[in-house]
Amino acid sequence: MSMDKLIERINEMENPTVAGLDPKLSYIPGFITEEAFKTYGENFCGAAHAILRFNKCLIDELCGIIPAVKPQSAYYEMYGWEGVKAFFDTIQYAKQKGMYVIADVKRNDIGSTAEAYARAYLGTTPVGSTQPEAFNADAATVNGYLGSDGVLPFLEWNKAIFVLVKTSNPSSGEIQDINAQNAAIYRHMAGLVEKWGKGSIGKYGYSNVGAVVGATYPKQLSELREQMPHTFFLVPGYGAQGAGADDIVGAFDKKGSGAIINASRSLMCAYRKSGGSQEDFAKAAKAEAERMRDEIRRVIR
Amino acid sequence: MSMDKLIERINEMENPTVAGLDPKLSYIPGFITEEAFKTYGENFCGAAHAILRFNKCLIDELCGIIPAVKPQSAYYEMYGWEGVKAFFDTIQYAKQKGMYVIADVKRNDIGSTAEAYARAYLGTTPVGSTQPEAFNADAATVNGYLGSDGVLPFLEWNKAIFVLVKTSNPSSGEIQDINAQNAAIYRHMAGLVEKWGKGSIGKYGYSNVGAVVGATYPKQLSELREQMPHTFFLVPGYGAQGAGADDIVGAFDKKGSGAIINASRSLMCAYRKSGGSQEDFAKAAKAEAERMRDEIRRVIR
Repeated sequence: MSMDKLIERINEMENPTVAGLDPKLSYIPGFITEEAFKTYGENFCGAAHAILRFNKCLIDELCGIIPAVKPQSAYYEMYGWEGVKAFFDTIQYAKQKGMYVIADVKRNDIGSTAEAYARAYLGTTPVGSTQPEAFNADAATVNGYLGSDGVLPFLEWNKAIFVLVKTSNPSSGEIQDINAQNAAIYRHMAGLVEKWGKGSIGKYGYSNVGAVVGATYPKQLSELREQMPHTFFLVPGYGAQGAGADDIVGAFDKKGSGAIINASRSLMCAYRKSGGSQEDFAKAAKAEAERMRDEIRRVIR
Repeated sequence: MSMDKLIERINEMENPTVAGLDPKLSYIPGFITEEAFKTYGENFCGAAHAILRFNKCLIDELCGIIPAVKPQSAYYEMYGWEGVKAFFDTIQYAKQKGMYVIADVKRNDIGSTAEAYARAYLGTTPVGSTQPEAFNADAATVNGYLGSDGVLPFLEWNKAIFVLVKTSNPSSGEIQDINAQNAAIYRHMAGLVEKWGKGSIGKYGYSNVGAVVGATYPKQLSELREQMPHTFFLVPGYGAQGAGADDIVGAFDKKGSGAIINASRSLMCAYRKSGGSQEDFAKAAKAEAERMRDEIRRVIR
């Protein structure tokens, strides 16, 4: 069970956080991009090399204290297929280092196409007599607007998915909060997520179908925790998006489990606040990761 | 205005259809995959070369009679970054041949990340002092579950998008048909789409914000046509998914404009039904495209 694997890694490290790897070039220290441009050109090839080096340094420092990484595919796709290769290389490197990888791709489509996306991020793809893996993450994020037949193909690989339920952005309510049959739409999505997870509940009581629930809506977070007892939460919005430690308490169950909190910019760009040198960007990320871990430990106890 | 460009191409060819390029290897004639495997290996590299050759042959035959192509990214991503390179090469080749390209990516995320996706598929990305284009399509499909701030960044490039409103798959109603405040959720999404399009209405009365509405729900299609007078429709579900010519009539306005009908498998796999040789797969696709065009012309007049 893939969600069990994530929970075990969280428990081992006593740290329910995931490092978002959203490597815009402007976040990367200048000495890395300059060197990459010099060697590979001021183009997508150079950009992709800079991104990969940045990510590897972060992973090296973080893998000892953070259980998981969440590369966000948009920040690779905008550097073309070369960027997508860096996305692939990042996933493989993080896995080598023992980290659990959530591919933040928010994919969605009708059944036959959802099956292709599931192969891409979680499974294997038939190529002649072989069955290679395309990106081979441990989990992926999924948009459930198309209903069951757009989601269930992702479960065939016995890995985990996280379905968008209540997202962290300011306008998330325009569809998600519409009241229907005495409950907001995100509550209906939550009901589907619990249902989709029924067949894959693991030894910690959580299924392979998780939910994305933003830290920026703490009231909804607590309500959903109650409504979704078998659903593990991936919680974005902490840090740069404005939510603090108190806002995320409601994501956790009574044992202090049930959720993983994402931080992206606050780790990647920690070196800008630390006052240290650019060269120490990964150490600054580690220090910030430790601070965040300790802060979260404090509120969930 | 990008939607104007699409409408003009449709009018020139008197053909409101788009060829979906969803090249599963199993759809590709054996002689192409065999040659590619022999030259590049039975791996993603070989698969990507087979896909690109298949697509180029189809584009060569279809560009004279079909105005647009819609490559579906899942069927490239499942062949890894090599597949994504074939996606890129397919887009550039189709554009060279004068076709309008809709990147069927169904992307969605919070504002800053939506901006990155918009750069990837419609815009440019800053790389040092340069601004290269990553995939450079004419239009992209978008999932609007996150509301305005996940959608508006896509409009900054003055290209077109198609937002999922009522999808063609069997379970699309699980969220989309839920009744809220006297209208189904897909109707609320439709209202948002009209609103998002307000600032970009072109000379044919349609905005740059289109909608994906499935042919498999003909009643909803007609209702939405009425509710969304400034929204151009991208209509999947015709052919292999079960909808026929009569089902799509409601997608068009009184002038016979307002929609483009997608066909994927029925074109790509036409050679299997034609009784001709595998080598003539592209000619079989063209014959099927002509048949489909004539059928659609008949019903919209």
